[in-house]
Amino acid sequence: MSGAGPVVGLDIGGTKIHGCVLAGGRVAGTARRATARGIEGVLSSAADLVEVLCRQVGIAVTDLAGVGAGLPGVVDTAAGLVSHAVNMGIAEADVPLAPLLSARLGGTPVVIENDLSVATIGAAHLLEAGDDVALLSLGTGLAAGLMLHGELRRGFRGGAGEIGHITYVTDGAACHCGQRGCLELYASGAALAARWPSPNGRPASVAVFDAAAQGDPDAVRVRDEFVAAVAAAVRIVALTCDVEHVLLGGGVTEVGAPLLDAVTAVIRGWEAESQFLAHMAIADRLRLVPAELATAPVGAALAFARVVPV
Amino acid sequence: MSGAGPVVGLDIGGTKIHGCVLAGGRVAGTARRATARGIEGVLSSAADLVEVLCRQVGIAVTDLAGVGAGLPGVVDTAAGLVSHAVNMGIAEADVPLAPLLSARLGGTPVVIENDLSVATIGAAHLLEAGDDVALLSLGTGLAAGLMLHGELRRGFRGGAGEIGHITYVTDGAACHCGQRGCLELYASGAALAARWPSPNGRPASVAVFDAAAQGDPDAVRVRDEFVAAVAAAVRIVALTCDVEHVLLGGGVTEVGAPLLDAVTAVIRGWEAESQFLAHMAIADRLRLVPAELATAPVGAALAFARVVPV
Repeated sequence: MSGAGPVVGLDIGGTKIHGCVLAGGRVAGTARRATARGIEGVLSSAADLVEVLCRQVGIAVTDLAGVGAGLPGVVDTAAGLVSHAVNMGIAEADVPLAPLLSARLGGTPVVIENDLSVATIGAAHLLEAGDDVALLSLGTGLAAGLMLHGELRRGFRGGAGEIGHITYVTDGAACHCGQRGCLELYASGAALAARWPSPNGRPASVAVFDAAAQGDPDAVRVRDEFVAAVAAAVRIVALTCDVEHVLLGGGVTEVGAPLLDAVTAVIRGWEAESQFLAHMAIADRLRLVPAELATAPVGAALAFARVVPV
Repeated sequence: MSGAGPVVGLDIGGTKIHGCVLAGGRVAGTARRATARGIEGVLSSAADLVEVLCRQVGIAVTDLAGVGAGLPGVVDTAAGLVSHAVNMGIAEADVPLAPLLSARLGGTPVVIENDLSVATIGAAHLLEAGDDVALLSLGTGLAAGLMLHGELRRGFRGGAGEIGHITYVTDGAACHCGQRGCLELYASGAALAARWPSPNGRPASVAVFDAAAQGDPDAVRVRDEFVAAVAAAVRIVALTCDVEHVLLGGGVTEVGAPLLDAVTAVIRGWEAESQFLAHMAIADRLRLVPAELATAPVGAALAFARVVPV
């Protein structure tokens, strides 16, 4: 990451873009702005933020080695295409977003990557968790980003890590995917928000954990059911891919240490009952991705460096 | 697999060894014998069978490029060590079985590998299923052998593919692993045998499917519950690793096409309800490993060639 020049990383979401400049392996600057919708909106928002970031650290856009960008939706990194990024108002398939953004930036090379993949790359890097990692993203949905021996596992149909749609409760509630009882109905931020509406704008996860810590029996029940489902997600990742590190990320991590402690306690309880699970030592591999870390923008910059060595 | 000489593949199990000679990419001969117990027993049984196979195809042991052997238990392929292969009466850890067998064979190189891995390599090869494959082994237990983009995925603690110990029924029956309701209690040959004892020596799986086909309502229920659990195992593999091919193997495949048809029908039913699963097109990736194929011995020979190119 030293050598050829700084890299900008962009985490492009449906409502905002979060960016950073990575120079010599260090974050030299960060900035955010709102995302305008549609192809033209995304391009101009992203190009604006790149310019803001460059001004912030006192360089020209032409000084950049390149730009890496993480996007929701189906991303073809090799061809620079994004499809069905409906959160950003891009319903089209095979939109050549990487070459379009590159042209907007005077020919600066651009690499695009799926947002869960960049979050995984960034979390593994910032937590110094090596190259064999699953990031459990506990947000609106539930999915795992997989980096196996350094290689991102996307899967044959782009569905690797879609553990949120494994059945957790037989004949459970209806999921938007068309199945019933999917794990993400129990182990996601949205699941928690549905069970514990938080009228004052605090994240539902923080509100539930606080109320539970104060002894509210309903909150204790909601928290414990959520934590058990998250632990089940961890077990699924551990007993399929057996990665060296399992990282808990996503919006729910605003709860902080109490979330990690609670999930760890459930798994330690299982390990006390099961020699097999004790041997697997899953709890020892579990870590929390602090919500304040710029994992996705940093991961986006690193995603660029994976494709175009700098 | 042409060039430097034929390779013997051995599938060493607790009661018998099944071997083959692979020459020029073709199976030139096969043979079986009983496995004697303990380190000395396994070494002499294996060395005997290598000699029998060589005589059968008219070559000397010294003409072999090498021997690949699949073993139950924890195998360190790089160092040639096996640990805790209790099925074969080897309770010890770190037994240098590869160098010991090599010495017994006059210095012929020997590579050892986990039995599930060799079955996966062999099944992928014989079914021409490419290099991105999960083999669901439905035998005494349930586990998945994983080959991801050509690389065997063993996992950080050797637990990759241990899907049999993911919970399938909350508070279900006790599993020998110490947990409750594990998937292998519902989706394995042993599970079927426990629910449908087959007094006349026929495999329980064949007996259940036959009785169900003749309309026995108990058999229909046992069969359908088993098939649903196998389908759940397929979904777990598809929504974690998203491999290109999912192969059904193990003793249960003696049922043949009716097993594949039944599992496929369950998954097609899910796909009819779920656009997400329809997009994943899991049923299209499902294939049966015919029980009569010598997948494990062929895979063992190929495992040798993966380590020592011939």
